[in-house]
Amino acid sequence: MSEKVSIAVDALGGDAGASVVLPGVAAALEEDADLEVLLCGPADVVEPFAQSHDRCVAVPCTEEIAMGEHPATAVRKKKDSSIVVGCRQVKEGRAQGFFSAGSTGACLAAGTLVIGRLKGVARPALCTIIPSPVKPVVMCDVGANADCKPEYLVQFAKMATIYVENVMERENPTCALLNIGSEEAKGSQFAQDCHELLKQQVPNFVGNGEGNDVAMGAYDVFVTDGFTGNVCIKTIEGTSKALFGAIKGVFKRNALTLLAAAILKKGLTEVKDGISADTYGGAPLLGIKGACIVGHGSSSETAIKNGIHMAAKTVRLHVSDLIAQTIAPANAHE
Amino acid sequence: MSEKVSIAVDALGGDAGASVVLPGVAAALEEDADLEVLLCGPADVVEPFAQSHDRCVAVPCTEEIAMGEHPATAVRKKKDSSIVVGCRQVKEGRAQGFFSAGSTGACLAAGTLVIGRLKGVARPALCTIIPSPVKPVVMCDVGANADCKPEYLVQFAKMATIYVENVMERENPTCALLNIGSEEAKGSQFAQDCHELLKQQVPNFVGNGEGNDVAMGAYDVFVTDGFTGNVCIKTIEGTSKALFGAIKGVFKRNALTLLAAAILKKGLTEVKDGISADTYGGAPLLGIKGACIVGHGSSSETAIKNGIHMAAKTVRLHVSDLIAQTIAPANAHE
Repeated sequence: MSEKVSIAVDALGGDAGASVVLPGVAAALEEDADLEVLLCGPADVVEPFAQSHDRCVAVPCTEEIAMGEHPATAVRKKKDSSIVVGCRQVKEGRAQGFFSAGSTGACLAAGTLVIGRLKGVARPALCTIIPSPVKPVVMCDVGANADCKPEYLVQFAKMATIYVENVMERENPTCALLNIGSEEAKGSQFAQDCHELLKQQVPNFVGNGEGNDVAMGAYDVFVTDGFTGNVCIKTIEGTSKALFGAIKGVFKRNALTLLAAAILKKGLTEVKDGISADTYGGAPLLGIKGACIVGHGSSSETAIKNGIHMAAKTVRLHVSDLIAQTIAPANAHE
Repeated sequence: MSEKVSIAVDALGGDAGASVVLPGVAAALEEDADLEVLLCGPADVVEPFAQSHDRCVAVPCTEEIAMGEHPATAVRKKKDSSIVVGCRQVKEGRAQGFFSAGSTGACLAAGTLVIGRLKGVARPALCTIIPSPVKPVVMCDVGANADCKPEYLVQFAKMATIYVENVMERENPTCALLNIGSEEAKGSQFAQDCHELLKQQVPNFVGNGEGNDVAMGAYDVFVTDGFTGNVCIKTIEGTSKALFGAIKGVFKRNALTLLAAAILKKGLTEVKDGISADTYGGAPLLGIKGACIVGHGSSSETAIKNGIHMAAKTVRLHVSDLIAQTIAPANAHE
């Protein structure tokens, strides 16, 4: 039996909204008997679902943050939105973690403003698992902080390392700076300053990694600013999509290629699933007082389920406490 | 008959050196009867080759710039290296273009320092054709300038647009800023400043593009700083490599999958060739007084041949003059 955990879930998140989130919640509850879900959303959506599912509590709210809204403004104004209400469950101790497949920006803003930063953490950061076919790696930051200072990247490196060691259960993870050359003096002035600081302050820092190292799984942790990281993960996504599209075109050429495709279908589906964002279900916002997992807008039921499981795992492994212990003492000596 | 063109070629460039460059040169000479090659490299390599090939002139030199050397320092010190000597052929009018598959950094430095910037161009930039399976697009800058000012990106956008219109023969190309969100106010402060300036000064600017838009061929030109651009193109490279590796693993599972793979081989090879860097042979350094095409370190014979053809085409289409006419008057009014 695992530790009992309460996770607040945004019923409205994702492009498909409740129609995908609710089956995902149901599956997560079924697979984890020690999980409780606080389902945040309109009363007519969350109440009937909670009544018909064990360990699900309805948390009705009246507002919704749309995908296009300015994140920080929306979070400040829409106090009764599913994202803000969900984060408030964590802030006020009714839940230990929050999951949403809604607006990434709003989740980051609410995670930081409502749940709150850990002491000593300069900037919470979005960390994502990149499901490379070679070896999954994590990248941090991938979009919470478009503008960074070198000292932020030191914290990103430490936080992501803790995540990889614990949630991904990987021993002695290596950490590389995403840069444009392997030599120390390569890159922008910012990248060079980061390299210098990472070398001094991050024990598992091994040097620069490049764009081609990411999908090849060359290092366990890639640390970068949120701008470069976001471009990188979306580039991987687009490249995979374009390639699979082209391969599908080859399959459709004639009856023989269709037959060959049928033979390979199982294996290729495994490759495709292996690199799918659904496998992990979401990206953790690290550096806040609790767990906050942000799912992809196009999340499937499986992705929602896995995202909720990831939130529960992040809570059970006390990732937030481990980060606090690592970051706070480091800052105390400064 | 096309215009007669002389291209200086670095005989030592590329991971495999002369053993790949020389057959590439031979093939280029064979395919283009109006091409002359000034082959720069050690006398014992270039002289016998020039003697046995029409329209090839040996330009013996005694030094070589290795891949790991500091580019600007190497270019300043090694005045008799194949890269510097090759660029000097252009500077002194004996050739109109230069091709090398050697150190990218050294080619950029020599292109800028030896051949020289066009009047009004703040920073020459490396522009690459990204061979997306959907539609090839160009990105500029991809590594010449890791640190940029917003006004540089305005010039990158204009130069890359000229390249796409002329060399790629694409009408009304669209230009997008590589950013982390489609809305105008998205991205780092730098990206927001760039957006503002591009909107004002670049007629074919259509707004922000994201990482996933690149391989999907959503816009014709992606403009970015050299750091982000370099991460992006290397990420595409690594993702393609990782995916094809995983697919190869599926093929090898059993006798039936091997048979299916044999049926699909032709089509998949076409997809693979379509996204291969070899198809275009190199990336042009735009904004200098002549053509300078930088090939990939792992260039094949075909890549070398295509890189030389690209240099000849860039010269014949007067890309450099067109850039000078576009950039210089714009600056004259400032």
